[in-house]
Amino acid sequence: MKIALIGAGNLATNLGSALVKAGHVVCQVYSRTQTSADTLATKLGSRGVSDLTEVVTDAQLYIVSLKDSALDAVLPTLVKGREYALWVHTAGSVPMSIWKEYGLKHYGVFYPMQTFSKVREVNFTEIPFFLEASGKMEMDILKSVASSLSRNVHEADSEQRKFLHLSAVFACNFANAMYAASARLLEEHGLSFDVMLPLIDETARKVHELHPSEAQTGPAVRYDRNVIDKHLALLDNHPLYKELYELTSRIIHEAKD
Amino acid sequence: MKIALIGAGNLATNLGSALVKAGHVVCQVYSRTQTSADTLATKLGSRGVSDLTEVVTDAQLYIVSLKDSALDAVLPTLVKGREYALWVHTAGSVPMSIWKEYGLKHYGVFYPMQTFSKVREVNFTEIPFFLEASGKMEMDILKSVASSLSRNVHEADSEQRKFLHLSAVFACNFANAMYAASARLLEEHGLSFDVMLPLIDETARKVHELHPSEAQTGPAVRYDRNVIDKHLALLDNHPLYKELYELTSRIIHEAKD
Repeated sequence: MKIALIGAGNLATNLGSALVKAGHVVCQVYSRTQTSADTLATKLGSRGVSDLTEVVTDAQLYIVSLKDSALDAVLPTLVKGREYALWVHTAGSVPMSIWKEYGLKHYGVFYPMQTFSKVREVNFTEIPFFLEASGKMEMDILKSVASSLSRNVHEADSEQRKFLHLSAVFACNFANAMYAASARLLEEHGLSFDVMLPLIDETARKVHELHPSEAQTGPAVRYDRNVIDKHLALLDNHPLYKELYELTSRIIHEAKD
Repeated sequence: MKIALIGAGNLATNLGSALVKAGHVVCQVYSRTQTSADTLATKLGSRGVSDLTEVVTDAQLYIVSLKDSALDAVLPTLVKGREYALWVHTAGSVPMSIWKEYGLKHYGVFYPMQTFSKVREVNFTEIPFFLEASGKMEMDILKSVASSLSRNVHEADSEQRKFLHLSAVFACNFANAMYAASARLLEEHGLSFDVMLPLIDETARKVHELHPSEAQTGPAVRYDRNVIDKHLALLDNHPLYKELYELTSRIIHEAKD
């Protein structure tokens, strides 16, 4: 499969490496900045470009991994003259129908639900891929590419994918924001975030076995007002954390009833 | 070590099992309800009581694991006639000084920082224990007991422990609340929470290597207003989740600057 990667961010970086490892050819990397394009292209044994008109016209699959808000500006130019190919984006929140506007025939969505950072290489084997395609042939191609990377491949329509992405923001981005708040509070008191890791690991392991609503512990679910009030007082210098503490405790407590 | 367990909740249940496995004798379990006392006592090959006056007077170590708000009502009766022994509580947010009020000489705090549920047995080996004691002898005893359970034993004063507990609420209880919100949103749309587990695992693993502030991904840290607004619209039927989404996104975004 001759693949062009449009984007060189966290997702494109990780996906690109995984594709190359799985034996695919990434023939080109496009990024708005030449440095980003070159950095990733070098990693993938590919070529980087930052000019839309220089994007290759002979790739079989174009994988677009750009910030959602950049799509409208870039796609019209990009797609032109490349309508024969299969086009996919990797965004949770962008409907597949976006491709119709550009008069494409072969298109779809290739959404790996995972948290990607450039500095950390992720093992793709367990990553759930959610695929959507304009037709059976397109779906077969996407399934074959996704299956070469992961054994956790699903179909999902645009409506389901919206809620997968929203749910992932809670389970991943917001859970990480809770780790970050924890780290900050510890570090402000001369304590290392490392002491929290066994608890973080167990919290994640636990929901493999218990539903999160059953796994819930702590002052909010016991409604231990005594502890809650002490904690709120400790957060007097952090008005946003205080608000977060109150709101999350209320959500935990109300979910219990 | 002859130990009496005062309390039969999640923490007492897990700690009791670990103590027995490590070769200690739990000679008695007290709980306000006889059934709870008996359930745990049976597990530990011990005896359950629900009457404070029946608590043994010859234990060497009394481990008090009660809801913080119950301590004041129970301790005066409990301690009386047992002032010779070593008394500890297991609460993150209760200062060690509470014991002074009852005229005790040997006392301390034995705080395992972990999330405990009765139905899930936890491996204690990695659990960080934070110990505080009235004197060197008492600390030596607590260290010896804690080290028989875990290789992650620390000293921490009451001030540090307050912040450890507060930080644990964020990293564990609130992270789990994010999993619960995620599960609810998925299940409302016919999707199984199981698809989220690889992402949850990676989010937890990631902060072993990157600081949570570096590990942050998602629409809030990119400030992708396009996605944020779409997500808020999806939460119209969940006013509390919507508030949580807005607040957490703001915290993530402001932490970045």
